[in-house]
Amino acid sequence: MYVLRYSKASPYVRKILLAAHHLGLRDYITLEVADTSDPSDSLREQNPTGRIPVLVKQDGSSIYDSRVIMDFFERQSDNFLFPEKGDLRDLALTQAALAEGLIDSAILWVYADRFSGDHPIPELWRSHQLQKIEKGCDYLEEQISSWLSNQPFPGSAITLAACLGYLSFRDVYNWSNKRPKLLNWYNEVAVRLPGFEITAPDSD
Amino acid sequence: MYVLRYSKASPYVRKILLAAHHLGLRDYITLEVADTSDPSDSLREQNPTGRIPVLVKQDGSSIYDSRVIMDFFERQSDNFLFPEKGDLRDLALTQAALAEGLIDSAILWVYADRFSGDHPIPELWRSHQLQKIEKGCDYLEEQISSWLSNQPFPGSAITLAACLGYLSFRDVYNWSNKRPKLLNWYNEVAVRLPGFEITAPDSD
Repeated sequence: MYVLRYSKASPYVRKILLAAHHLGLRDYITLEVADTSDPSDSLREQNPTGRIPVLVKQDGSSIYDSRVIMDFFERQSDNFLFPEKGDLRDLALTQAALAEGLIDSAILWVYADRFSGDHPIPELWRSHQLQKIEKGCDYLEEQISSWLSNQPFPGSAITLAACLGYLSFRDVYNWSNKRPKLLNWYNEVAVRLPGFEITAPDSD
Repeated sequence: MYVLRYSKASPYVRKILLAAHHLGLRDYITLEVADTSDPSDSLREQNPTGRIPVLVKQDGSSIYDSRVIMDFFERQSDNFLFPEKGDLRDLALTQAALAEGLIDSAILWVYADRFSGDHPIPELWRSHQLQKIEKGCDYLEEQISSWLSNQPFPGSAITLAACLGYLSFRDVYNWSNKRPKLLNWYNEVAVRLPGFEITAPDSD
């Protein structure tokens, strides 16, 4: 068994759980809630930066972050998340990296409020993140048909699903408005990923 | 030839360049400065989120982010950055992920100033990032001897070198004070990486 330090709201945790469902590994994972804001949580012994997800392996060693855990999962399964080599691997990894970049921006948008203290929320920071998200979603609307429908790489689809779900969950950006192709991809592909519903984000 | 969209200050660009030096690929890369703050820079056509580094391949396609480029570089070379499989791969990838987490925190510490607008710099945010960096450096001081000296995985060493160099360059955190083992690793291992001097960060 593996132990996954997690929170129900984290899009990077959701990515890992969707990957585990896809690869048939979900039954080998025990979930253990992590409180990233509590310095006494044992999480910091597993990952000194206090980020989640962290996976504790059977030998007691901890591995992180989500991409490293995905890489590990892929090696425990006969199934795959990304093509093994060639241009298709570059394409699929870049797709996932784009979705991860958008997740980063969404989290930083949320944190602008959480960490502003007594100061007003820095709007310059928020608009900087929103610009990245908007440009990324425009690009996805343009590319999604050829990008992910014809060659659905599971790792890319899983990451993008976690990304779009998080944007909606935190009310960061209304990505589906005026983006019919992206919305269609979400409704036709993303929601059918194994474990999609059971991994839906929930407030901490 | 590949084109690398870059800036001299970016630790993620430095990571890529150190990797290219290590793998013997540096001569195949043309550098092209990217202005991440200029919306009209062609960078946004290569990566809609406007982040660097981006590598433009010979077929004109763009790949990002730095980990994806590392993965691509590794497949173009007979040399390696990370072990191919097993527990050593998990260890080495987690080492690099820790260093990357610290780079993220350092960049976010710097951006707290750059994007605060007319507001004061949010100190809560800065201290949140500094805590992560401090904890991470404490962990490295404790682990560095067994972690990287006996089994020097190039990908981990390169990422950590770029991380520590950036912390010093931006005056984010005095990591070497009271951390003799980490400082020794930097002076004995990091500075000897191929391309270390020529890739040193420089102001934009």
